[in-house]
Formats: sequence, structure tokens, C-alpha cells
Amino acid sequence: MIEDKNPLRTPVEQLGEFGLIDHITKSFEIQNTSTVKAIGDDAAVVKFENHTVVTTDMLVEGIHFDLSYVPLKHLGYKSIMVNLSDVYAMNAVATQVTVSIAISNRFPVEAVEELYEGIQLACSNYGVDLIGGDTTASTSGLIISVTALGEQVKDKIVYRSGAKDTDLLVVSGDVGAAYMGLQILEREKAVFKANPNSQPDIEAYSYLIERQLKPEARRDIPKLLEELDVQPTSMIDVSDGLSSEIIHLCKQSGVGMKLYEDKLPLDPTVISSCEEFNLDSTTVALSGGEDYELLFTIKQEDFPKIKANPSLSIIGHVLPQSDGIHLVTRGGEQIAIKAMGWNSFEN
Amino acid sequence: MIEDKNPLRTPVEQLGEFGLIDHITKSFEIQNTSTVKAIGDDAAVVKFENHTVVTTDMLVEGIHFDLSYVPLKHLGYKSIMVNLSDVYAMNAVATQVTVSIAISNRFPVEAVEELYEGIQLACSNYGVDLIGGDTTASTSGLIISVTALGEQVKDKIVYRSGAKDTDLLVVSGDVGAAYMGLQILEREKAVFKANPNSQPDIEAYSYLIERQLKPEARRDIPKLLEELDVQPTSMIDVSDGLSSEIIHLCKQSGVGMKLYEDKLPLDPTVISSCEEFNLDSTTVALSGGEDYELLFTIKQEDFPKIKANPSLSIIGHVLPQSDGIHLVTRGGEQIAIKAMGWNSFEN
Repeated sequence: MIEDKNPLRTPVEQLGEFGLIDHITKSFEIQNTSTVKAIGDDAAVVKFENHTVVTTDMLVEGIHFDLSYVPLKHLGYKSIMVNLSDVYAMNAVATQVTVSIAISNRFPVEAVEELYEGIQLACSNYGVDLIGGDTTASTSGLIISVTALGEQVKDKIVYRSGAKDTDLLVVSGDVGAAYMGLQILEREKAVFKANPNSQPDIEAYSYLIERQLKPEARRDIPKLLEELDVQPTSMIDVSDGLSSEIIHLCKQSGVGMKLYEDKLPLDPTVISSCEEFNLDSTTVALSGGEDYELLFTIKQEDFPKIKANPSLSIIGHVLPQSDGIHLVTRGGEQIAIKAMGWNSFEN
Repeated sequence: MIEDKNPLRTPVEQLGEFGLIDHITKSFEIQNTSTVKAIGDDAAVVKFENHTVVTTDMLVEGIHFDLSYVPLKHLGYKSIMVNLSDVYAMNAVATQVTVSIAISNRFPVEAVEELYEGIQLACSNYGVDLIGGDTTASTSGLIISVTALGEQVKDKIVYRSGAKDTDLLVVSGDVGAAYMGLQILEREKAVFKANPNSQPDIEAYSYLIERQLKPEARRDIPKLLEELDVQPTSMIDVSDGLSSEIIHLCKQSGVGMKLYEDKLPLDPTVISSCEEFNLDSTTVALSGGEDYELLFTIKQEDFPKIKANPSLSIIGHVLPQSDGIHLVTRGGEQIAIKAMGWNSFEN
């Protein structure tokens, strides 16, 4: 499916670790005044005036991505997004990342360059500085480990634990599309395996595929909430699936929740592709994961400030813990929500 | 060689990712006031008054360690040490770490526990808080990615770039032992393969093996230098080998250096084991790596403050860049120093 666009194959040994790092990082520019010293010493140096948030995520070939249909540039981009998403979920501003990669010897310098093109694009688009990392050999597949730093004044930081009874539950954007994008890609891979001359027809699914291959972290939401003068009471990013994240918020805030099926924001192509794949779109929305949207709670009094906003959907409300966590279906039934999100150990 | 001390084999799927994280991190205690929020949210939160240093290192099974003779507890300990060593090389105080691991399905919960016992011991011994991480499945071996944070006032931070002509070159502790420890372990592994009933006789080599399996980062050196009122002009940690680190300091400071063979601090067991293995001890000292000692330069005027210190050896001095980088042998010969340190892509 992916053409070989890299006829050049320079072995990494030719540059060595330090040469490779110099080569791939020389075009990265520093954008933040909080970055004092980036790559090139035993450690990077940063200086924050406010509180610092720190998050880390690891992506493993064969578990989190399949290089047979994930372009390396997209993978680099996504590896930054999944980390920035966690910074924004603290209502903070992302400022720096470190990127460590383990690569097999069959990985030429040109492939590493493609990966870092995506990393650089992500850093540039999101105003984030690459300040460090590690580059090593791997006995098998590609591993990418990113740590992201961000900054926020103490009182603006939002934890998972602050939701209160009667708060409203809000999600940004729409959910389920990244999961359906993965289904499309897996199907095309199977078709291609059966018939390598087949031409994939994926134009109708471009939104779904983009959500899977090139997600965008919601940097705009903390800014929007500040403009609207709304301080969320709790927040989490939707990486493992909406139901799993709802359970995290409830558990850590000591509350229950009610979620309304008819309020779930679904893109029309999610609904049509679910029909095509014979999947229930609500299940996909609840359990799909990798949406990288922000899920948060706000005080009821803030409802007028957000109600007409096209980026935000009110999908439920907070209840006392004893009321449990339920989905109210279109038919008015109440179904207990269980975590059905993605677990890397079960795949 | 390593007995199976874990007849219990609880599969990781049984706990799931979140259950596993809860299980292994519940006994970690927070020691630093700069840690505001540790594990359990989208990101950790820290607050530093001073400048922050950030470093990251990845350890890959089959490249950096061999589980056939490296106990998991030692591996956990070492994975923290290699990162703290980079923090101390900035003359900073290490305060927090994040630890991400990728593990194969054959890895039981008990093995993860052993790994984290070492991580916890390291954190406890070095006054460092575990504030985050990621735990995921791996398609093959074990991967450990650690990021460490530290703190220091701006003017006390030491970079690689500050060495000046006439400065003295100093190294802490001794060098070459970790490399010889690895040779012993590799030899014992080969003996064991040939004859599984053989009893390894490694008592005579215990210092070497300890330096390889359970290195200690030199937290004491920045403290000692402060007590002695010595501010290094440049500093780096010895991870890839003394010659490689000397070249880094020279390149980044724009200087040359002269290093004296008879001043290299070698443990007597390094000398005796080099004879046994028919290796040149100076080559081992220069290229062995994994010593996790600190290599630094000081102003000549500070010489009286450090000259009698048993933890420190003056091994050379700084010259103008045009003089190059040379080793002066015991016979008085000058040999140009080339990097011969460890490169993961060539092994």
C-alpha cells in the first residue's frame, strides 16, 4: 500500500548515534523562552515561572502501530500529539518534548528522517521545543518514547478529581472516528494482501483515516475555555475510549455520572461506516479510543457560556457516587457503563 | 545462572494496565516538596523554584542488557542510575523520574514487581520521586525508558562547553571496572551454556560485577564540590567511555586536552582481570564505558582544594584547541585520542 519513496538507504552505523542526532535535530528551532538549553549536553535545562506538568507515553511497533500502513511522518506527528494531549488535559500549555527512539538495523537514516519530519512538524505547529532524547538500536521493531512538559499557573491546573454533583459533562469535537479509521486501514491491508494489484478506494473515508493517522491534540480547548471564562472542575483526554475516561473521572472525583446516547457527537462518516462494518456506533463512540479529544466537567452556572459552541458537546451530568455510572439510551433505558477501552495487554 | 525465584506467574492481563500500575506504585513514597502531583492523572505536576534539568535514556533488552545474567531488580536500579548520572553531570540535584516499560506477554506480574523493587530502591536511596510513566505490551523484549528531572540555581549549572585553557581535568572514582564486569559475566554465561552444572566462581570479581550490574550515580560529587567551594567549568558523565567523553568536552568547549596514562584511576581488580583476559588496561579505562563517574574541569587555582581528595583524580589538563587531544603514555609518547566508546548501532 505504501510505496517506497526512499530508494536511498543510508545505514545508521555510517553516522553513528551522535552523528544521527546532529543530523536529524539540526533543523529544529527553539520557540519558547522557557527553554534555556536544548539538545547537546547531559541534560536539557528549562526555567518555568509557573507549575510544570510532565507526561510520558510509549508507542511500540506491532502494538500501537503497523508500519505496513502507517507512514513514518504521520507516526512521528502522532507520537507528539498523544503526549501533548495529556498536557492539554491538565489545562496547561505544552512547551517542550524529549523523544527517544529504538530502531532496528534495517531502519535506514532516510526512515529516521521521515519520522523526525513528522516530529518537527508537530513541534512547529504546536509551539513546542524538542529538548532531548535518546537514539538506540532495537533487536526488533521501532519504539518511540516521548516525554512532554507544559506550564500553567497553579490555580488553573485541572485534575481528574474535581468533578462535583450537578456538574455538566462536556466533550470536545467528535468521537469514534479514529477507531473507524483503523477498521478501514485494516480492511485495506487485508484486501491488499489478497490482491497486491488492487487500488484502495479510501477517499470517502478520508476524515476517519486522518483521525487515525494524524490526530490533532486539542491545544485550542484550554485557550477557548479561558476566553469563555470557564474553569473546568475535572478533565481527562480521550485516549483509551470515552467509557474508560468517564470511569476515571468518576473514580477519582468520587462521583457518579449519567451520559446520554443521543448527545454523543458522531461524525456522519462514523455512522455510515459503522453501518457498513455492522458495528454499533454508540459502542464505537464509547470504546473506540484514540480520539484525543478533551472530556471535562463544568459547573452548571457555566452552561450559558458554552451552550452554543460548535467545538463542545454537553453529553451528560454528574451525580452522587451512589447513583453509579449509566448510559441513557435513545429508548430511555439505563445501562451501566463498564470500561471497554483499549488494553495493550489484551491485543 | 539465575535461579527462578518466582514460581508464581500471574499474567499481566489479569490486572490490566491500570491495575498493574496501581499495584506496583502503591508503595512508592513522595520525598520532595517540588512534587505537587505524582502518578494518577493525565500528567504529573511539579513546581521548581530554580532551573530544571531534564534528561532521558532508553534501555533495550538484547542491546543494553541480557536478562540471562542481569537480575531484574538490578536492572530497575541501573535504569534509574544511568539517568540520575546525567542530572548530576549538570551539577544539579535529581528530584523526579518517570519510568515507561514495554513488556512481552511472557513477563509475569512477579517479574514486573522485581523490576520495580529495584526502581523503588534507587528512588529511595537517591531521594527521587517516581511521578509517572507508561506501561505497555511489547512484541519482543523488555524496554525501559526513563526521564529524570533535577533542579539547580542558574549559576551553579555546569555545561560541557565551559572548559578553558590551563583548566585541570578531573575524574571521580575509578574507571574500566564496569566493562571488566561485563567480560566476566559474558564468560560465565558461555561456561554455563557449555556446562549447565558448572558453579560460577565469581567472588574475586565481585567489585567488577557490582560496577556492571549495580552502578551508583555520583550524587555525592556535586555536594562534595560545593563543600570544597569548587565550581567546575565543564562536566559530563562517563557512560560511553572516558575517551568519548573527553572528546565531547573538547569539542563543545573548543579546547584541546592532554591526558596522562599514569594518572588514570584503576581498581587493582581491573588491572588483574585485564591481565587474565589479555586486555590492555588503559584501553579498557578509555573505552570501557558504563562507569557513571563524573568527568569535569576545574580552574587551576582550585587545585589545592581537591588535591588530596580520595574521590577525585586529576588526570590531565586543558590546552588550546590547536594542540589537539592526546594521551601521554607511561613511556612519554603522545597518542591522539579517538572516540572508541560504545555505539549501540555497531554491536
